[in-house]
Amino acid sequence: MTIVARLGADPPARLFNSALAAYAVVTAWEVGLLDELRAAGRLDIARFAREHDLHEPSVRAVLSALEWAEVVRVSDDAHEARTADAFPEIYATKGFFGWLLGGCGELLRTGGVVAQGGSWGRGLIRRDAGRIGTGTADFGRQFIDPVLDRMLEGIDYTCIADLGCGNGDRLVRAVLARPGSRGVGIDIAPDAIELARKRVAEAGLLDRVVLVEADVCRLEPRPEFADVDVATCFLMGHDFWPRENCLAVLDGFRAVFPRLGGIALGDTYRSERSPGADLPILTLGFEYVHALMDKYVPTLGEWRDVFPDSGWRCQAEHDVTLPPNTKIFHLVRAS
Amino acid sequence: MTIVARLGADPPARLFNSALAAYAVVTAWEVGLLDELRAAGRLDIARFAREHDLHEPSVRAVLSALEWAEVVRVSDDAHEARTADAFPEIYATKGFFGWLLGGCGELLRTGGVVAQGGSWGRGLIRRDAGRIGTGTADFGRQFIDPVLDRMLEGIDYTCIADLGCGNGDRLVRAVLARPGSRGVGIDIAPDAIELARKRVAEAGLLDRVVLVEADVCRLEPRPEFADVDVATCFLMGHDFWPRENCLAVLDGFRAVFPRLGGIALGDTYRSERSPGADLPILTLGFEYVHALMDKYVPTLGEWRDVFPDSGWRCQAEHDVTLPPNTKIFHLVRAS
Repeated sequence: MTIVARLGADPPARLFNSALAAYAVVTAWEVGLLDELRAAGRLDIARFAREHDLHEPSVRAVLSALEWAEVVRVSDDAHEARTADAFPEIYATKGFFGWLLGGCGELLRTGGVVAQGGSWGRGLIRRDAGRIGTGTADFGRQFIDPVLDRMLEGIDYTCIADLGCGNGDRLVRAVLARPGSRGVGIDIAPDAIELARKRVAEAGLLDRVVLVEADVCRLEPRPEFADVDVATCFLMGHDFWPRENCLAVLDGFRAVFPRLGGIALGDTYRSERSPGADLPILTLGFEYVHALMDKYVPTLGEWRDVFPDSGWRCQAEHDVTLPPNTKIFHLVRAS
Repeated sequence: MTIVARLGADPPARLFNSALAAYAVVTAWEVGLLDELRAAGRLDIARFAREHDLHEPSVRAVLSALEWAEVVRVSDDAHEARTADAFPEIYATKGFFGWLLGGCGELLRTGGVVAQGGSWGRGLIRRDAGRIGTGTADFGRQFIDPVLDRMLEGIDYTCIADLGCGNGDRLVRAVLARPGSRGVGIDIAPDAIELARKRVAEAGLLDRVVLVEADVCRLEPRPEFADVDVATCFLMGHDFWPRENCLAVLDGFRAVFPRLGGIALGDTYRSERSPGADLPILTLGFEYVHALMDKYVPTLGEWRDVFPDSGWRCQAEHDVTLPPNTKIFHLVRAS
C-alpha cells in the first residue's frame, strides 16, 4: 500500500511522461513545430495546424507533452505556445531523439521478442534507415562537422571518399571546400544513395562526385576509387568489428584505394561506465540498440589497440563533445 | 555554446535515458526478468539468460537501462542484478508502460505522419491490441478490480455481461464469485475472444459462460443477452462518445439487455489540468494517444451531464487510485 501512496511525483510517472515527451520531440520536429518555434519563439496553435494541414488535437497533445518537459509553455487561453527553458537544448539534441525513437523505436518496441535467443527473434530486427540518417545528420552537422572541418583544412586532398555517406551532405561540403577536388560517396542503403544523388545535383556537383552503392566492409577495387587520396568515415566504424574483421576491413582499404593516404574515422566507443544519474545523452541508447542487434561496440582501448596491426597509424585523436564518448581518429598509411 | 556546456545532467539526457528505461521496463516484463527479480530479489544474469534462452547482451543492456532508472543494481563484477529502490513501484505500474510502449509504441513512432490532416495519415494508425490488453489487465487487476469486487458484492446478479471483456479475466472472476451465476463476454477483437475462451475453459466455466464477438457500441438483441441482469464495462466508455453517440449506446443497452438493472461503468476521464511536474502516470499518455487517434475523451463533468438523458441514473461514483482520473459509475435503470 505504500506503493500506491507514493505514486505522486514518483519514478514511474517521471519515466512514463518522459517517454511520451521524448516521442513528442520527434513528432514536433517532423511536423515542423520545432523549427517554427525556433524561428518565432511562439506560434498560434490553431493557425499552425491549419497552415500545415495537421490534425489540431494531435498538435495540442504534442504540445502538452512538451509542456510537461518544460520545452514549451501553452498560454492560459490555449491559443498560443511559446518556447520555455528546455527548448534550446532539446532543439540542439533533437537528432538523438529522432535516432532513438524514430529510427530505432520499432526495435525497442519489439525488444521482448528480439531478445529471444534463436534466429527467429533476431529476424524481427527492424530499424528505419531514413530516420536514423536524418537524426545522425542533424547532430553530426552541429557537433561533429565543425571538428572535421578544422581537421580537413590541414590535409591536402584532390579526391575524397565518404565511407557510409548517408544523405551525401558531408561529402558535398568537403568537395565544395576544396576547389577542383572530386568525391566518391559509398553507402549500402539504396535510399541513402538516392538522397545523396539529389544533394549532389542540388550542389551542382554531378560532374565531380560519383556515388556507389556498396557495403563499406566488403569493398572491391573499382576505377572510381583509383584517385581517392583522403577518406572520411563517420558513426559506422563499430560495424567493422569484431577485431579480426576490423583488421581485415582497415587493411583492405589500402588495396581498394591505392592512393589513400589518410582516413578521418569518427565513431562512438563503448563507455565503460555505470549508468549513473549524470549519464549524458545517447550513450545508454547507443549501447542498448547495438546490444539488441548483437553488434559489438568496441571501447576506446580496443580501437587504440587495433590500429598498430591494421596497416594504419593513428596520427591524432580529436575529441567531439556530442555524441559523448566519440573521437575522430586521424589515420595515416603505415609505411 | 552554453547549450553544449550545460549538456551534463541536463533535460535532454534525462528525457532520452528515461524513454529508453521505459522501454526496458516493457522488455524486462515480457522476457520474465521482472517476475524473477520480484520472486527472488536478485538474479544471476548469465544463468537467467541461459535458462530463458535469451540473448545475453540484450539482457545486460536492459539491466543497464533499468539500473540508470534505479530499478535494479548490477554487482561490480557484473554477475548479478538485484532490485533497487524504484523496483516495487515500477513492478506495480508495469502495465502502464506495456500499454504505452508495447501497445501504442508504433502509433507514437509514426505520430509525425499520423498527425497529417488527411485520411492518408489517419490510415497509418497501428496499435497492438494484444499488448494493450495485457497492459490494462495488469494494472486493472491490481488497482481497479478490488474496487469493482467490493461494489459487486452488494449487487444481486444471476447473469453478468462484461462489455469489452478482453482476456475474460474479469468476467471469470465475477461468475466464480457468485455460485450458479452465468456470464456473457463481448469483445470486438477476435484475439481477445480467443484468449477469453481459453481463460473460461481453464476455469471450467464453458457451460456457464458465452463469448460473443461484437462491437459493444452497435449491439443487437440476441438470445444470449436475454437474462443479463448486471453489466460491467471497463476502460472503453470513452469509445461511446461523442455525446449523441454515447446517449444512443447507453439507451440502446436497455433494449439489447431487457433485464439489465445495473451497469458498473469504469473509465478514465479527461484530466483538465496543466501538465505540471507532479502529473501522475498515464494521464498525459492516455490523452495523447486518443488525440492521435482522433477519439474524444470526455471530462468528468461531461460524463455526469450525459447520464440524466441516457435512460440510466448514476447511483454512485467509486474512485479508483490508479489509473488516475478514473471512476466506476454505478448506473441503474431509470424508471
